[in-house]
Amino acid sequence: MSDINAPVAGVDVGGTNIQVGLVGDDHQVHERAKRPTPTEGPDAVLDTIAAMVEDVGGDPVAVGVGIPGVVHAGQVLTVPNLSGWGDDVDLVGGLAERLDPPVTLGNDANVGLLGEWVAGVAHGHRDVLGLWIGTGIGGGLILDGRPYEGSRGSAGEVGHVLVLPGGALCGCGRRGCVEAYAGRRSMAGVAASLQDSGRETELFEIMADEDKPRPTSKVWARALEEGDPVATELLDTAVEHLGVAVGSAVNLLDVDLVVLGGGLPEKLGQDLADRVEAAARPRMLRPSPELAFVVSSLGDDAGVVGAAALARASVIAG
Amino acid sequence: MSDINAPVAGVDVGGTNIQVGLVGDDHQVHERAKRPTPTEGPDAVLDTIAAMVEDVGGDPVAVGVGIPGVVHAGQVLTVPNLSGWGDDVDLVGGLAERLDPPVTLGNDANVGLLGEWVAGVAHGHRDVLGLWIGTGIGGGLILDGRPYEGSRGSAGEVGHVLVLPGGALCGCGRRGCVEAYAGRRSMAGVAASLQDSGRETELFEIMADEDKPRPTSKVWARALEEGDPVATELLDTAVEHLGVAVGSAVNLLDVDLVVLGGGLPEKLGQDLADRVEAAARPRMLRPSPELAFVVSSLGDDAGVVGAAALARASVIAG
Repeated sequence: MSDINAPVAGVDVGGTNIQVGLVGDDHQVHERAKRPTPTEGPDAVLDTIAAMVEDVGGDPVAVGVGIPGVVHAGQVLTVPNLSGWGDDVDLVGGLAERLDPPVTLGNDANVGLLGEWVAGVAHGHRDVLGLWIGTGIGGGLILDGRPYEGSRGSAGEVGHVLVLPGGALCGCGRRGCVEAYAGRRSMAGVAASLQDSGRETELFEIMADEDKPRPTSKVWARALEEGDPVATELLDTAVEHLGVAVGSAVNLLDVDLVVLGGGLPEKLGQDLADRVEAAARPRMLRPSPELAFVVSSLGDDAGVVGAAALARASVIAG
Repeated sequence: MSDINAPVAGVDVGGTNIQVGLVGDDHQVHERAKRPTPTEGPDAVLDTIAAMVEDVGGDPVAVGVGIPGVVHAGQVLTVPNLSGWGDDVDLVGGLAERLDPPVTLGNDANVGLLGEWVAGVAHGHRDVLGLWIGTGIGGGLILDGRPYEGSRGSAGEVGHVLVLPGGALCGCGRRGCVEAYAGRRSMAGVAASLQDSGRETELFEIMADEDKPRPTSKVWARALEEGDPVATELLDTAVEHLGVAVGSAVNLLDVDLVVLGGGLPEKLGQDLADRVEAAARPRMLRPSPELAFVVSSLGDDAGVVGAAALARASVIAG
């Protein structure tokens, strides 16, 4: 029985970094490691994860991994945002060759919301929409008091709720998804186009000054703080479209909590949640009187804590 | 124990008619009654329901009622489409004064989908979106193998998913909801405006010929069959916007079945389901390979069978 209380490892695979934490049964991160995500494809990522799990030590009894892709029945179906990943990567099998403890997989935004639900702002809530704003827009759902993943593991894609049919081109190849207006990658593309056409913006100078290869959430936060007009206008547009997507989602799901997580909410804080709420409210039919909008309280740790919770659930289920 | 197999009564309260059925534990409707919905307010509706339940006889052990409004914890929160109904009507208490068996309430579209789930096309499906197209657009959800009603009973409002922010005015007072394009009431309003501005349409002549006070689903079906250009154009627009709303809902919920019910699908049949599917598919990110679009198989009985299932669940729960 001691296994149930033994530490587990949570792994958060992002487009930029991999984070690994040794997590106790109190959902606290006791040891942690962070490395850049290899760009050479799945094998390099698997080697890095295995080495990092070894590094944090503590003899974890199980490993949970959140990845930016679709996961169904333990298999990775697609990983659209990591270079060199084709379809149907056997990540569980590949890690089993490199690590002793059993491995469980989940989608990164689903896992981030799970972290907030077991140990953060969503704790005790029955119906929750997670809105994860980073390079793209991810999402997760807790419905009727349990994580909801849909019939094939791809539920929660709030980033691909349509906010303007025929609108801006999205990374998914369709037009008018909210990600095309509020994902950082899309926003950076529009900022570059505006600069090319003569609009003044400090965004790319701040990026160079921060020594970043692209405008990160930190770069956007600095540009907004300095009152950069292009950054301000693009965030205003993003918030407006996020309000439409979240309003539609609340009408469909009648959740009592919306949690904003990921890089941009982490940097901009509760003010971003308040602004998205103000944009979403006029679109709602009959929201719960208890409905609240909050920013992730675990911040950068949400993915590691959620991945560890997945691992622990697998230990408890036996 | 015989109570569990005894008949129950299912009541479907619509804007036009009330239908009552005596339903066996095989979900078959053994006796049925249909009367126009009184327009004098709640008391007249309660009297009519009680008289109809008496009429169908069979000593039901429980009564289930589906109404076009929001229901939470047995209380009616709002009934937007029945005249003379304010907020917070105690429909359960009012029926308890008039009937012996215990009464359970549900939203009409939720209850219609429940009927299809216990005894119709959705039987055995785990994740289902119900799209109920009538005067307005209602909806229902079965998620993870059980009915999902949200934190305050108003989940499933797919009619108020936004398909064109700032678009057409909806009955709910907002702009750009799919109901503003695909609900029969909105479509009739646009048809009247088009006729006023000189467009030729047979819709209102067919309505008079059918002796209907407004363009019913039957009237629309006849106009479409006769190739009426205004009816055809309005249905094309409705289908396009339904595709946007359902595409967004599938991206959020990853259901494996979409059921179309209510008056218009009942008259237009599987062809309407196929057209909505064709409009929705291009909007979907990663639909389940099993995803299908089907028309309600119980038709006009779905509400009665679903309301009876609600009643039976209350008997089983004790």
